[in-house]
Amino acid sequence: AAAHDGAAATEPFPLAELRLRRVLRESARDKAVFLHGEVRGGGGEGTDAVVILEKTPFQEEKVLELLKKHTKLELQMRNDIYSTYHLYPPPELSEIKTTVVYPATEKHLQKYLRQEVRLIRETWEDYKNITLPFIQSQSFSIQWVYNILEKKAEADRIIHENPDPCNGFVLVPDFKWNQNQVCLLLLPWKRSCLSEGNPEEMPLNDSSEAVAKRFGVPGSQLRVYLHYQPSYYHLHVHFTALGYDAPGSSVERAHLLADVIDNLAMDSMYYQKRALTFALRADELLLKKFQEAGRV
Amino acid sequence: AAAHDGAAATEPFPLAELRLRRVLRESARDKAVFLHGEVRGGGGEGTDAVVILEKTPFQEEKVLELLKKHTKLELQMRNDIYSTYHLYPPPELSEIKTTVVYPATEKHLQKYLRQEVRLIRETWEDYKNITLPFIQSQSFSIQWVYNILEKKAEADRIIHENPDPCNGFVLVPDFKWNQNQVCLLLLPWKRSCLSEGNPEEMPLNDSSEAVAKRFGVPGSQLRVYLHYQPSYYHLHVHFTALGYDAPGSSVERAHLLADVIDNLAMDSMYYQKRALTFALRADELLLKKFQEAGRV
Repeated sequence: AAAHDGAAATEPFPLAELRLRRVLRESARDKAVFLHGEVRGGGGEGTDAVVILEKTPFQEEKVLELLKKHTKLELQMRNDIYSTYHLYPPPELSEIKTTVVYPATEKHLQKYLRQEVRLIRETWEDYKNITLPFIQSQSFSIQWVYNILEKKAEADRIIHENPDPCNGFVLVPDFKWNQNQVCLLLLPWKRSCLSEGNPEEMPLNDSSEAVAKRFGVPGSQLRVYLHYQPSYYHLHVHFTALGYDAPGSSVERAHLLADVIDNLAMDSMYYQKRALTFALRADELLLKKFQEAGRV
Repeated sequence: AAAHDGAAATEPFPLAELRLRRVLRESARDKAVFLHGEVRGGGGEGTDAVVILEKTPFQEEKVLELLKKHTKLELQMRNDIYSTYHLYPPPELSEIKTTVVYPATEKHLQKYLRQEVRLIRETWEDYKNITLPFIQSQSFSIQWVYNILEKKAEADRIIHENPDPCNGFVLVPDFKWNQNQVCLLLLPWKRSCLSEGNPEEMPLNDSSEAVAKRFGVPGSQLRVYLHYQPSYYHLHVHFTALGYDAPGSSVERAHLLADVIDNLAMDSMYYQKRALTFALRADELLLKKFQEAGRV
């Protein structure tokens, strides 16, 4: 191992000699792939490595060069005024960002390994018989939420608060927050779960104004939504800038707060009547519960 | 115009001679760039073109080749077990998907130009008084849709079809389709608009099975949805792999087909009672109509 460490610190990573064990995960949207590889030492013993390849964004100043210097242009399809091609650029104009974790442990491999994901269509019966008992059986710790509400943590990050003991709330940046993105949570004081919450009572205008004031993003440019399934069971709302294509704002997970409020105003039993779709990873216990119940 | 049409139909697009006018938009997340270019004719007159360059997802079967055949590997950063490099692949392993709209009108240029975006909450009254008259007043050309339905274009790309004159449909890859993503459209033969369409009559199982069979993606891993507002007014459905974080699958635009069907089954007047949220760019005429009506 000492020999490996020494080698890793001084020599370039031997990419061309890497033995490819498997593809851990790929992202078609991000144009990235996560690989599990193995480097063979002099004695024939293998050491694991994670190699992440990601295509890079176009650089504005190099686009013209790309158009001029392509090595080949192959027509794929033509229809009316639209056509598509494959363009093959010279190497210097198509760099790939390569990240190496070496030596990699089993934990690194698990971190990047893709889990299969599948959609569940949960009826109200499913919620009562499978999901709710599952949630109640788990002792998910949401101490960090109470820490915020009780100002034992992140007190200096609070953007806005309404101290009403019944309908009050606190507005704080999300962990994943980045300057231009505006991910925020609104945490009502009431210790309620989504299914029992009353989103229609939430002071939406009040909080949108606070976000607008703090970050200079007008309310009409804010995506305001709940997650189902949420990542923790204390009613909370996400705010993201419309211009930011936020992960977690997909139709199979996000529910616009305005839609939820309208649905409940139209029919207070709406969510008892309508099935809801969400995605579960293959290793999630809730999926196993749906399988045991013969529902997937 | 006749000369353009003839040229466009037979010759490859003269990419290397393109004069770059400006970058309309770029997406660092998607590794895509949208260009406004100009093609000079023999007489010196210019014709506008939109050229979209998008890096392609990695193909699993070619990853090993990429590791072996890279032309150069440059170290960028090293810290403990982590290091990053720039890898320069040979041309044949770094294709760029190129989409050309030529000749392009001012409308096409505007479509791809980056614009500020804002949310609209459209009530049924708004739809009747603002949106519907607007759609009817526009003469959007959807000739390319009819070309597909009448097999004048893309006939060899059809994945599945149901020839029923009333509820029949055609399943074809989307323009934006890439090998691992499964973006598809389902185009019903009936020349209907979303608001007048009857999604509940769509043979969803039939088409999901066809997609599953062709691409090896099970139905439980398909995100099946409509867009509102759609990009063209002929009822169509999007299919994307759940693992692919597809643009256009955001909660402010996508509506799961299963939700739409359930809502209509619960109350056939559901969409006449409920407001719908969608985003409009600052330059869209429909936004101006909402502004004139004092609704935003």
